[in-house]
Amino acid sequence: MVQKALGGAGLRGQVAGKTALCTVGKSGSGLTYCGYDISELAAHATFEEVAYLLVYGELPTVTELEAFNHRLRHHRRLPLALKEVLERIPANAHPMDVMRTGCSVLGNLETEADFSHQDEAIERLLATLPGILCYWYQFSHHEKRIETATDDDSIGAHFLHMLHGKKASELHQAVMHASLVLYAEHEFNASTFTARVCASTLSDMHSCVAAAIGSLRGPLHGGANEAAMALIETMTDAEHAEKVLMDKLASKEKIMGFGHAVYRTSDPRNAIIKQWSKRLSEEAESPRLFDVSERCEQVMWREKELFPNADFFHASAYHYMGIPTKLFTPIFVMSRVAGWAAHVKEQRADNRIIRPSADYTGPEPRSWVPIEQRVSAIPTE
Amino acid sequence: MVQKALGGAGLRGQVAGKTALCTVGKSGSGLTYCGYDISELAAHATFEEVAYLLVYGELPTVTELEAFNHRLRHHRRLPLALKEVLERIPANAHPMDVMRTGCSVLGNLETEADFSHQDEAIERLLATLPGILCYWYQFSHHEKRIETATDDDSIGAHFLHMLHGKKASELHQAVMHASLVLYAEHEFNASTFTARVCASTLSDMHSCVAAAIGSLRGPLHGGANEAAMALIETMTDAEHAEKVLMDKLASKEKIMGFGHAVYRTSDPRNAIIKQWSKRLSEEAESPRLFDVSERCEQVMWREKELFPNADFFHASAYHYMGIPTKLFTPIFVMSRVAGWAAHVKEQRADNRIIRPSADYTGPEPRSWVPIEQRVSAIPTE
Repeated sequence: MVQKALGGAGLRGQVAGKTALCTVGKSGSGLTYCGYDISELAAHATFEEVAYLLVYGELPTVTELEAFNHRLRHHRRLPLALKEVLERIPANAHPMDVMRTGCSVLGNLETEADFSHQDEAIERLLATLPGILCYWYQFSHHEKRIETATDDDSIGAHFLHMLHGKKASELHQAVMHASLVLYAEHEFNASTFTARVCASTLSDMHSCVAAAIGSLRGPLHGGANEAAMALIETMTDAEHAEKVLMDKLASKEKIMGFGHAVYRTSDPRNAIIKQWSKRLSEEAESPRLFDVSERCEQVMWREKELFPNADFFHASAYHYMGIPTKLFTPIFVMSRVAGWAAHVKEQRADNRIIRPSADYTGPEPRSWVPIEQRVSAIPTE
Repeated sequence: MVQKALGGAGLRGQVAGKTALCTVGKSGSGLTYCGYDISELAAHATFEEVAYLLVYGELPTVTELEAFNHRLRHHRRLPLALKEVLERIPANAHPMDVMRTGCSVLGNLETEADFSHQDEAIERLLATLPGILCYWYQFSHHEKRIETATDDDSIGAHFLHMLHGKKASELHQAVMHASLVLYAEHEFNASTFTARVCASTLSDMHSCVAAAIGSLRGPLHGGANEAAMALIETMTDAEHAEKVLMDKLASKEKIMGFGHAVYRTSDPRNAIIKQWSKRLSEEAESPRLFDVSERCEQVMWREKELFPNADFFHASAYHYMGIPTKLFTPIFVMSRVAGWAAHVKEQRADNRIIRPSADYTGPEPRSWVPIEQRVSAIPTE
């Protein structure tokens, strides 16, 4: 059992490094970025302020934020070769594969030559990832070659503009700020840890971010908001939600968007995105998705003492803003890239290559057997 | 100091999981794959036999190996969209960025839909990675669109054929087998661990391999053979090598290709590749590179008790076969993909998401400050 606990337990509870970026389940409402509580950041900060905080360690002054926003706007145009690559990715590709590839291609065209340019590489990724997604999406789904160099004030507004072909409302811009702030950073989660292991070989920023995107793509990590959407879109009203969920619980189906590896009684991000989902449902005069989501929350707590995590009310919120479900996890990328990049910087600043050990469970030493003398190990049927 | 040992030490000596694939520094000559000593494998096995061993757990029978080789040959053709992407990557791109991107693009075109297809995805990657590299290299450097569907018997011969435009000699084919066998697997090294962290989210094979390529790209991991080449190509003969090296040691320069994180007195792969380098130098009737390499080995042991690792004599061996230095690390990818893929399968078979903890070293909890009241944290010059 001890071996199992060590070997198969995903390093749970084991310290794998140091960070000044984030605490989870330790103080305040349960999540802090550089000492600031997530509830304060989500209430007051733009996403760009939070990205600046993570990448540079402190909240920006007026001058610093203006300059940062200016650079992010200026960096939105995609290189021609990148657009030509995106045009060759089919409509049925996994959007996370598109994000990973877009980041990887950018690494060929604008290689981070040395770490003195790391901040430029980070800002360029923050600025281009929404365009990479939307350019591919609009070309592959609607045969449109969109302009990614919009003049929108924020990354969230920029994304919604490219997606819908028109400026986003004030409310939708505000929701995008809150959503991107909530998703920006979460300590040594699997994708961030992937980025840090990659960074520990002193590899380049694009390799680290591409690796992290690949990790976030996994269904045990990103994608819970998409799974939550698939659940709630089948529910016609709160009573129906109750019935669907009770049936699923009776057949022991896993319900995505509830519970958390670290939080025990609530996810501090839930109350925030839930409020925004409610606002959006009122604006849309379409209460169904919010109502069924709230009923799911009640049933899961009553039956299982499980609480919604950051993902659950994101499903309805994104849907109210007209975002296709398949683009939910890529939005997570647009936000979390700030956290990943900050962790890469931190790893580089105090680095030792991450190279753990393994418990060996394989065959004892054995001698070479000439091929003619071998017996097939594959059982015949 | 305890905190430092835990937090900044790259998980050295900490068990991060189980493996049946490999032991390092534990038995035999110091490196075993699935119980077989590396010296026996390098002496007797083709690379394809070793790839089969890693991916399927046992050495193949005659029938199994023939079928495996047939599938690998059959899978060499690149999709048109992938070739069009490779044609858009400039000649001055980092070849490891090309490999990472080629793998990532393949994930868009031939997505691993579910794990029941994992072996097909692995075999396709084994078969196409040499073609991805050579197609890009020949197009970007020589404006040639090469055919990647050769009928060569082995991956090594296939690679040399595409690189040189003619069939490789028996000797060169044998060296490629040995080289690819030596590089195929090495327990929880950083790139393999990257692949396992990514796999632990249950992400797809292409995400895991692309992440691993990004890690191997880092100068602390792959690339030592390229650095060794840069060193030895400046040396005109053994006496000059002695002088160059003594000067570098006097100025405390780091000499790449010597020492190892796990091995203490020798790297079991060195003696093997050294013998092949000697054979190649004799065939070429050009002893210089081998002679200077051997002198480096003597000087480093005499002065520092450091031994050549797998990379050092690979530099001269690859050079004798006419391989451009910038393609050395991508050859590592063609081989190690077998180990990475085997580890991904193993992680999937007994998975828990890899999510360690961090020691927090950041600011104490602090309150939101409105932007007008902030003071710049960046010192004025």
